[in-house]
Amino acid sequence: MSNTIGKLFQLTSFGESHGKAIGGIITGCPAGITLDFDKIQYELDRRKPGQSNIVTQRKEDDEVEFLSGIFEGKTTGMPIGFQIENQNQKSKDYSHIKDVYRPSHADFTYDKKYGHRDYRGGGRTSARETANWVVAGAIAKQIIPEIEINAYVSSVGDLFLEKPYQALDFSKTDQNVVRCPDEEVAEQMIQKIKDTRKQGDTIGGTITCVIKNVPVGLGEPIFDKLHARLAFAMMSINAVKGFEYGSGFCGAKMNGSEHNDLFNEDGSTKSNLSGGIQGGISNGMDIYFRVAFKPVATLMQTQPTIDKDGNVVEMQGKGRHDACVVPRAVPIVEALAAMVLVDFSLLNKTHS
Amino acid sequence: MSNTIGKLFQLTSFGESHGKAIGGIITGCPAGITLDFDKIQYELDRRKPGQSNIVTQRKEDDEVEFLSGIFEGKTTGMPIGFQIENQNQKSKDYSHIKDVYRPSHADFTYDKKYGHRDYRGGGRTSARETANWVVAGAIAKQIIPEIEINAYVSSVGDLFLEKPYQALDFSKTDQNVVRCPDEEVAEQMIQKIKDTRKQGDTIGGTITCVIKNVPVGLGEPIFDKLHARLAFAMMSINAVKGFEYGSGFCGAKMNGSEHNDLFNEDGSTKSNLSGGIQGGISNGMDIYFRVAFKPVATLMQTQPTIDKDGNVVEMQGKGRHDACVVPRAVPIVEALAAMVLVDFSLLNKTHS
Amino acid sequence: MSNTIGKLFQLTSFGESHGKAIGGIITGCPAGITLDFDKIQYELDRRKPGQSNIVTQRKEDDEVEFLSGIFEGKTTGMPIGFQIENQNQKSKDYSHIKDVYRPSHADFTYDKKYGHRDYRGGGRTSARETANWVVAGAIAKQIIPEIEINAYVSSVGDLFLEKPYQALDFSKTDQNVVRCPDEEVAEQMIQKIKDTRKQGDTIGGTITCVIKNVPVGLGEPIFDKLHARLAFAMMSINAVKGFEYGSGFCGAKMNGSEHNDLFNEDGSTKSNLSGGIQGGISNGMDIYFRVAFKPVATLMQTQPTIDKDGNVVEMQGKGRHDACVVPRAVPIVEALAAMVLVDFSLLNKTHS
Amino acid sequence: MSNTIGKLFQLTSFGESHGKAIGGIITGCPAGITLDFDKIQYELDRRKPGQSNIVTQRKEDDEVEFLSGIFEGKTTGMPIGFQIENQNQKSKDYSHIKDVYRPSHADFTYDKKYGHRDYRGGGRTSARETANWVVAGAIAKQIIPEIEINAYVSSVGDLFLEKPYQALDFSKTDQNVVRCPDEEVAEQMIQKIKDTRKQGDTIGGTITCVIKNVPVGLGEPIFDKLHARLAFAMMSINAVKGFEYGSGFCGAKMNGSEHNDLFNEDGSTKSNLSGGIQGGISNGMDIYFRVAFKPVATLMQTQPTIDKDGNVVEMQGKGRHDACVVPRAVPIVEALAAMVLVDFSLLNKTHS
Repeated sequence: MSNTIGKLFQLTSFGESHGKAIGGIITGCPAGITLDFDKIQYELDRRKPGQSNIVTQRKEDDEVEFLSGIFEGKTTGMPIGFQIENQNQKSKDYSHIKDVYRPSHADFTYDKKYGHRDYRGGGRTSARETANWVVAGAIAKQIIPEIEINAYVSSVGDLFLEKPYQALDFSKTDQNVVRCPDEEVAEQMIQKIKDTRKQGDTIGGTITCVIKNVPVGLGEPIFDKLHARLAFAMMSINAVKGFEYGSGFCGAKMNGSEHNDLFNEDGSTKSNLSGGIQGGISNGMDIYFRVAFKPVATLMQTQPTIDKDGNVVEMQGKGRHDACVVPRAVPIVEALAAMVLVDFSLLNKTHS
Repeated sequence: MSNTIGKLFQLTSFGESHGKAIGGIITGCPAGITLDFDKIQYELDRRKPGQSNIVTQRKEDDEVEFLSGIFEGKTTGMPIGFQIENQNQKSKDYSHIKDVYRPSHADFTYDKKYGHRDYRGGGRTSARETANWVVAGAIAKQIIPEIEINAYVSSVGDLFLEKPYQALDFSKTDQNVVRCPDEEVAEQMIQKIKDTRKQGDTIGGTITCVIKNVPVGLGEPIFDKLHARLAFAMMSINAVKGFEYGSGFCGAKMNGSEHNDLFNEDGSTKSNLSGGIQGGISNGMDIYFRVAFKPVATLMQTQPTIDKDGNVVEMQGKGRHDACVVPRAVPIVEALAAMVLVDFSLLNKTHS
Repeated sequence: MSNTIGKLFQLTSFGESHGKAIGGIITGCPAGITLDFDKIQYELDRRKPGQSNIVTQRKEDDEVEFLSGIFEGKTTGMPIGFQIENQNQKSKDYSHIKDVYRPSHADFTYDKKYGHRDYRGGGRTSARETANWVVAGAIAKQIIPEIEINAYVSSVGDLFLEKPYQALDFSKTDQNVVRCPDEEVAEQMIQKIKDTRKQGDTIGGTITCVIKNVPVGLGEPIFDKLHARLAFAMMSINAVKGFEYGSGFCGAKMNGSEHNDLFNEDGSTKSNLSGGIQGGISNGMDIYFRVAFKPVATLMQTQPTIDKDGNVVEMQGKGRHDACVVPRAVPIVEALAAMVLVDFSLLNKTHS
Repeated sequence: MSNTIGKLFQLTSFGESHGKAIGGIITGCPAGITLDFDKIQYELDRRKPGQSNIVTQRKEDDEVEFLSGIFEGKTTGMPIGFQIENQNQKSKDYSHIKDVYRPSHADFTYDKKYGHRDYRGGGRTSARETANWVVAGAIAKQIIPEIEINAYVSSVGDLFLEKPYQALDFSKTDQNVVRCPDEEVAEQMIQKIKDTRKQGDTIGGTITCVIKNVPVGLGEPIFDKLHARLAFAMMSINAVKGFEYGSGFCGAKMNGSEHNDLFNEDGSTKSNLSGGIQGGISNGMDIYFRVAFKPVATLMQTQPTIDKDGNVVEMQGKGRHDACVVPRAVPIVEALAAMVLVDFSLLNKTHS
């Protein structure tokens, strides 16, 4: 099992949704960074459940406690150990899923691979783990404050935000609960999620992430291309099924004469269909990519499934689950992107 | 610069398109595997330029020479060193691109990152490197002969093979030069590429890869999910802009009630929208994914660009380039997939 | 900064001596191991300060709290997060060392490398960190219960236990406070340490470690030889200056005709001057090695030194320090050896 | 099997003594280093067999061929692929050892671990592999030309060079065939080796390595201490049984009051019993360490041993073997030390 991400700036994490705590160790953080702890908490609050009436009503006041690596408000270069207590782990009734493999969950594969599963709410496979990533990402952002990372919800189901990112005001992203920076589309998305929830159903969506002010030179091809690492990181998020950057899948339909990203005299490029990356290395233009999330698998509807012995059983989701995961995934996408960028920033220093 | 892929089954590679040779070292290959060298050469032949009149007419009779790690026809468990000579490195004229940054190439970013570039045909950024991967992949395939890996061209430009993979006969993939297993669509694709080439243009496309007979249990979440590693590997291929597996970007438009992949009594699933992977671990169903390739950047048309000093210059592609890269990329996709699968097979042994 | 040890069985650790807690994350521990928590606590008690009147009288009731990776008493294959509170971190007076570089400490080098130092008792450089290793090692021992790992104090200053390890009864090691399995020599060692302490001085020593019942085949040459990794691990322990295995430095004085380790008919060897390892791989014979510890640098005597500005100052050690570190280092040596052996056991599975 | 050493500056190597070639790939070498190829060849010549009448008379004119990563005489930042042909691989008669486990060789352990062995002269376990290291080390030296690395033979059997390294003139090391910088002791050593060889026997020895002009700050504790990595690297060399740095095993006999390495006002230290490293980080003083080599196992005498079936057989070494390996190991020790220092130099850049 791999629980570490990054090469020089690394997060190693632990924790199950219903254990005592989750947490992690961040290594490779440079010394002397003055940390703004409010900003870290702010990111955790963006991710936490129960923020609005379109996401799960589970309440988790995620508070991170730092145990090492910080002295007098600054990073010391030593590993940063942290933990987040699982406050809300009430001994609820899991008997309805204990022996049941939930459809489109990891119950079956974990059971087969590890010879057991932790049936208490997903165990290690729970998206609760992503709170650890948000902590590491919030620190990463503070190491590279000049780089602006803005993710937002760009579609919910078949409802798309059609405007190009250049036409958006990212300061509006967090002004609505769905985290779409276009107010009008946001309203429609919110309504769509409410309707979906009313039916006990769930719905997928996409997140677009735009990164500005990236220095030229980040990325370590041949096998550690900047976009390859971004894809790898995003693919770690629960429910992600696809990744594209720059022109993406649309680019595969195009001719070279329309796709080529011609230079301006200053070295910037005209179309940026390249998505800010050429040959796996940032070229100084905006990086943008899109991540596809499937609908949450836990429905408030009755579904047939099987138990460990292969018996067909009926199951109905209980508890407090998201009808649409993308609004809460926005800070997670940003966190992972920040971690990747810091890692490559450190790696790039070794070339000079 | 990262030149190694894999954790236990690793390829470390070297080489530029116009140096003396390219090559690599494969480590972690189990001992005692009887190698079929014809199969290795066969895969190299599938990748090589000049196979047909729709791909580049550069002739490279790629012959791999093994230098170690094989004794009396079997792997020994020792590192397998190999090299492929660059036979066709004629001292041609690169003066037209020596100081020019070609649009949508890595010239600019390599120059900025490393303080120089190898202008002789792309240097390390050349797709010639992928011949190394094909060698490693061809060996990987022989370690897991029970797993069937079949990639094919599923679109060229806006021309799509609409049939689901289940309706295809993969034995037909290599019967046409575009490597599309549907003869009719293949003909159309070939025509499209010929038309594109006639205009001195290039065109993008997608490759779909289907993997059958995968054992349950491959993948090492949280951060080394099977699909995350597949995405990472595919994103290493030149020109790739997107990756999706299972329902992919389409899944992001769906409701949970239609997306959920219900179990049959034997543990198999009904829709396999999951794409053979749940929670980052193979569930025994077919794995399938799709990779998007942008059009090749080198055109046989005149394009404006800049030189190192920021002067605007006109440039026209010379030489022998592909109008569409996807037919030749089919064995590359398969090779990388095989390497990922072998790596996880080895990692999985440490859990038992 | 590297805070991770191991390849498949890994410990990543954090913590300073005077922070809130130290701890770590163990990854790669196989699922389904029933843990004996008393044994883990027992090892921590062997390491802890204040055990006897020859070691430091600091009291630390090191209690480890496990936060994840264990369910119903068994390992789950998920990462094991744990922490040990620093109970005894009284806000004592460090003003006497705050700006002073203590001789033969890491104050100077950490300050220069990281631009600061944590003057509260050593920070990350404190041997308190080794409590984390003992936790991981105690778990490692339970993964390979058939392998017996026995370390003991083989010298204090110039007082050597001359008997070969074969003549010793390891059950006696913990029956005296110096952890020398020969009662008579143990008495002399204890007296020597007491005398040293009385003078406000400290003294070095060596630990020998004997590992029995090792299966043939552990070790991954060329660059991950079993003895290379043991040396690497032991060299991580504070104050260690040397490592030798098998015939060690004595072997360098010998002729081949006396050194060669002839085979018995059953594949065992006669002299085992090889130390149980040939070509970097265990051969099934006892592994034995010896580790040299310099004397503790903190004296209860006055020493001249310099402060950050290069001023010469007088300093005198205060607080509760060990006069001889080797008795408490015995469980640390065993812990690291166990971690190395488990790691190679897992790696070896990938060869079959 | 691990065939890679280093974290940022890495060598991955391949090759058996009797295959077509050995070689490797160096990654992480900074771009823009002008290479002096004569210096690389010079180091290879220092290592090669047949240099003098006290070492093996096998003739190997090791010539390295670089295949990539170098353009117009400078490193490009791309991986440096290289190979060295095995010119002298005459199809000699190995029937006398084919089924025999040679005492104190790796025949037995490799056979058990990998299910086979390459009986043609040691295969991968041959010290021929160290030629690869010398190439990588010779390049490493050119990356850090300001750091002086001087190894020399400090003992042969029980004959020791008693002078401290400060009293030696390292320019004399290569002026005699035993590579001891004291002419008088060198003469005695040479005589000792000749006498040993005459008896068909072999003899061990030690190498001391002194590194000057090391910047403060190299080393990445907790688990990647500078001396831990040096020990790990040295332990990779065939026949090495021990490593000590600074005061080493002698330090374990001392009191703290005599061992402590007091500061001068400029931050330098008085005794340097620390060996230039404190807390795992270089302190700017000379680094020195000592490596113990057992006697070569292949004797020109008759020895009893067993074959694969456990039958006792008589065997006598044939061929051209060293009676004492340490003179030829001097450049190997330097090469590995250089690789470690470059690696930490690159890692250290990520802290600033």
